[in-house]
Amino acid sequence: MSGRVARAALCRLSEPGDLRMDALVRELGAERVYDLLRNEQDVAGVYTDVAARLRGLDPERELAEAAARGIRFVCPGDPEWPEQLDDLGRAEPVQDRGGVPLGLWVRGALDLSAVAARSVAIVGSRSATSYGGQVAGEIAAAVGRERMTVVSGAAFGIDVAAHRGALAVKAPTVAVLACGVDRAYPSAHKHLLDYIADVGLLVSELPPGCAPTKLRFLSRNRVIAALARGTVVVEAAVRSGALNTANWCTRLNRPLMGVPGPVTSAPSEGVHELIRRGEATLVTRGADVLELLAPAGSFLAAPPRAPTAVADRLTDRERQVLDAVPVSVPAGTDSIARTAGMAVGEVATSLSRLRSLGLVEGGEGRWRLARRGDSAGER
Amino acid sequence: MSGRVARAALCRLSEPGDLRMDALVRELGAERVYDLLRNEQDVAGVYTDVAARLRGLDPERELAEAAARGIRFVCPGDPEWPEQLDDLGRAEPVQDRGGVPLGLWVRGALDLSAVAARSVAIVGSRSATSYGGQVAGEIAAAVGRERMTVVSGAAFGIDVAAHRGALAVKAPTVAVLACGVDRAYPSAHKHLLDYIADVGLLVSELPPGCAPTKLRFLSRNRVIAALARGTVVVEAAVRSGALNTANWCTRLNRPLMGVPGPVTSAPSEGVHELIRRGEATLVTRGADVLELLAPAGSFLAAPPRAPTAVADRLTDRERQVLDAVPVSVPAGTDSIARTAGMAVGEVATSLSRLRSLGLVEGGEGRWRLARRGDSAGER
Repeated sequence: MSGRVARAALCRLSEPGDLRMDALVRELGAERVYDLLRNEQDVAGVYTDVAARLRGLDPERELAEAAARGIRFVCPGDPEWPEQLDDLGRAEPVQDRGGVPLGLWVRGALDLSAVAARSVAIVGSRSATSYGGQVAGEIAAAVGRERMTVVSGAAFGIDVAAHRGALAVKAPTVAVLACGVDRAYPSAHKHLLDYIADVGLLVSELPPGCAPTKLRFLSRNRVIAALARGTVVVEAAVRSGALNTANWCTRLNRPLMGVPGPVTSAPSEGVHELIRRGEATLVTRGADVLELLAPAGSFLAAPPRAPTAVADRLTDRERQVLDAVPVSVPAGTDSIARTAGMAVGEVATSLSRLRSLGLVEGGEGRWRLARRGDSAGER
Repeated sequence: MSGRVARAALCRLSEPGDLRMDALVRELGAERVYDLLRNEQDVAGVYTDVAARLRGLDPERELAEAAARGIRFVCPGDPEWPEQLDDLGRAEPVQDRGGVPLGLWVRGALDLSAVAARSVAIVGSRSATSYGGQVAGEIAAAVGRERMTVVSGAAFGIDVAAHRGALAVKAPTVAVLACGVDRAYPSAHKHLLDYIADVGLLVSELPPGCAPTKLRFLSRNRVIAALARGTVVVEAAVRSGALNTANWCTRLNRPLMGVPGPVTSAPSEGVHELIRRGEATLVTRGADVLELLAPAGSFLAAPPRAPTAVADRLTDRERQVLDAVPVSVPAGTDSIARTAGMAVGEVATSLSRLRSLGLVEGGEGRWRLARRGDSAGER
């Protein structure tokens, strides 16, 4: 019996994220653990738990049936296994769950390791606002255009907006599920999931057929965080599962990013708290995400800039003269010099230059501001 | 002639934030500098600039007239002088302006030093959104309730919202102006400024009668930042003067705080950039500001929390059992144990406890979820 078969069996027997199973497999190897359980030997109390599930278990048949339906089982060490998942064996558990997945059931034509190599998780509330959904979609599309894979959980709200944003620019996207990759959960996303299976990847720790449970969602979140190079939280209320993913991202020492929103919006509360405590970096657009996740020095997000005004090219003292020029009734150079608190000679020179820039009008010693908009603002 | 008179004279002669004047006064003292200028001696090129303003200057009369109108001139070393302003003599200039004010013209009954001792600046765009104004007002009111003074610039938008928030809870508020404290700028805020003069303080580096200019606004911003213990930027587009105040706050090594907003809102762009670069700490409410500005350990902002659900008190394994209980058609203990991947005995015990918590219903070996809302969410 191969390690792969044993791992497929253990996947069916145990719940994902079970730390006892993770420790046993690491210590004894999957084959030995499966052998012990098959022989009704209780190791670390696991047998008692899995006894009922052992009955009728046939992992070889399960693997064959899955393969027939286009579902493969990717195990640690396989070429397609994303090595960054092994970090889960070193990260501190969150809420008593953790560990490296025994394997991942995968549906879709892409190579998981290849698409996850350049990837970002975009997660958030299922009860997202239209604002959150819009921003998630835009960030997903922006990173997708740079051929970065968007990883998410196919849930309502932010997740689906992120997947759609990636799909819209034909970027690879990976949905990590808390149920079998053959199941449509939530059922309203059946078409989306099928589409992702066609052009992206569906991934799960759970064997085909398994239903989602609350704990499976929690375990799933660690796979999202571990698969991606960093995680963006778009909207997350105080109890949102997205904060669990964020927590995993932090445990894995990967860049955690948060998109702010109105402070009056409950779905943004959790994100603001992450940023406030310094756990997440604030990001507002795909460029910010790329800057953080691309190799250092390979992508600098241009800071937002307003258009440069003519007045920006003035020296401090020329600006001081300009400030002293009246708006409507022209004033003499002497008067302007007095207002500016500067010598007449310098003021006269500056006024000529200001006229050449189209900022003041007049001449023969009387000046006023040119009639044009100046967007520079007064502060 | 006293130092006070000389400082009043130099206030009238030079522009606020003039680094040459700051250096001269520090090196020679205000009286000596004024003497030199009165005797038409050019020091550091200043005489040429101020010659026109020297004519007819009478600082004693000016001080007397100001006093008659309820305006006093507070100088460094006076009991009412806020010592934190002296930090401006050590901070690096911003845009070629800086230095300690020669003095401050003050209108209002409160003691400037006392009210500025516990203070926060709340600044932002003049073209604020209603969201920004609302949040500025709420933060001002929240810190005001803790007897913290709100410092701002009396401009349209965020400034006025901040002052009003403080006034609404009868908290002290200080408006630092870029014109004389006897002038109403903007004129639409005449009543507000008079009210602040009644119950708070109007403050300016500029002598009575002076008009605001762009450079005076920039110089004014440094006084706002230096007077307050920290600065909150609520909305600031990329070119907003509030970012100049923020820059001063950073140069002064005081806590800089930023209120986030929708990433789609231009007035929030500048604030997001400050937070993203780690220059500003994200704050969402008055409690966050108090936590940062109150003496360490004296004020901890309670993190936002959702109401605790009954299910939060479950152990991980009880939750695993709960997850396996069907919603509508009751299932037997054996079946639930198999679904949960746990031993029958433990599951039976857990089910009893879950029933006592009102989470499951049934008995005689058949169970289903109790019909009640559970807000915990599934992720």
